[in-house]
Amino acid sequence: MPKGQPSVVPDDGLTTRQRRNRPLLAVHTGTGKGKSTAAFGLALRAWNQGWPIGVFQFVKSAKWRVGEERALRVLGASGEGGTVAWHKMGEGWSWVQRGIESSEEAAREGWEQVKRDLAAETYRLYVLDEFAYPMHWGWVDTDEVVEVLRTRPGVQHVVITGRNAPEALLGAADLVTEMTKVKHPMDAGQKGQRGIEW
Amino acid sequence: MPKGQPSVVPDDGLTTRQRRNRPLLAVHTGTGKGKSTAAFGLALRAWNQGWPIGVFQFVKSAKWRVGEERALRVLGASGEGGTVAWHKMGEGWSWVQRGIESSEEAAREGWEQVKRDLAAETYRLYVLDEFAYPMHWGWVDTDEVVEVLRTRPGVQHVVITGRNAPEALLGAADLVTEMTKVKHPMDAGQKGQRGIEW
Repeated sequence: MPKGQPSVVPDDGLTTRQRRNRPLLAVHTGTGKGKSTAAFGLALRAWNQGWPIGVFQFVKSAKWRVGEERALRVLGASGEGGTVAWHKMGEGWSWVQRGIESSEEAAREGWEQVKRDLAAETYRLYVLDEFAYPMHWGWVDTDEVVEVLRTRPGVQHVVITGRNAPEALLGAADLVTEMTKVKHPMDAGQKGQRGIEW
Repeated sequence: MPKGQPSVVPDDGLTTRQRRNRPLLAVHTGTGKGKSTAAFGLALRAWNQGWPIGVFQFVKSAKWRVGEERALRVLGASGEGGTVAWHKMGEGWSWVQRGIESSEEAAREGWEQVKRDLAAETYRLYVLDEFAYPMHWGWVDTDEVVEVLRTRPGVQHVVITGRNAPEALLGAADLVTEMTKVKHPMDAGQKGQRGIEW
């Protein structure tokens, strides 16, 4: 709500405008749907502002996100909004092919790339899709993630999605939304379908 | 999860494929963020499938959804995926200008248009953004909505967003996700910012 009034005005020496434009760390977690779709919806707003967007896809299946990826690539190439760089663990990082050991390695390599890009201020919005998992599994050190994000330079917004986001990450986040499943077609025997699930 | 196994296989005389491709009614509700952004993220998948998409924006502020609207219009005009028709209550239906009485009328007019399009099978995905509100406020009759959706012809997916979605609607939905606010920047005195909130 653009016109909303905050419930607290902190004594942080910032003007409303300065406070408003602070870079955000958002986390979408919980067992329900919509965590990633909402992150990609957010990317549409960033694109509209002309911001460079970096997507880091920490997921296994090649089928997932095909719609989002194609749409964001078309938008990024349209010349009408921001640019889009799409980093897919499943490809360059061989997530699927080599099994657990190297999935762990791939996730760490992905995180190293994110760190380099944050240091270089490559993007203005980072979508770290399903990045909660490698933290939850201990593949990537949550304390390091929190520290790197806390000290990131400039104005770089970061959205992290995935179930089981670690408490330390939630503590560091500015915005946390939990998606809860109330009802799912699978409960009634209906499997996921094209155009809806991917 | 495309490869997931449903927990129940109903005795409904349908094949797995028939059941899988049944049209869905999805509801995104709750007080958290991401209800609409997830619906627009879903639209990216539908676009990628080449489906005609109809967005019906039951919201007041002209600022809201500017990013999503521009992105979906660019995608729809790209010739690479589905088409996008964007119906905005705030414009043709003068939601803002005329106050409550005619907002009610505008919402009803919007619903009448949705009914006509459903009957004509105009779109394959309908995003009825913030449509939970006119139902909650009694401007549009929930029982009628449920009945129209229950008997809609063909394969037309419908996503309805908004807080306070009526119980009868949730009962009729195939997929219900509740977005819960765990933490919001407004709690720390930070107002909404461009590229993030709109």
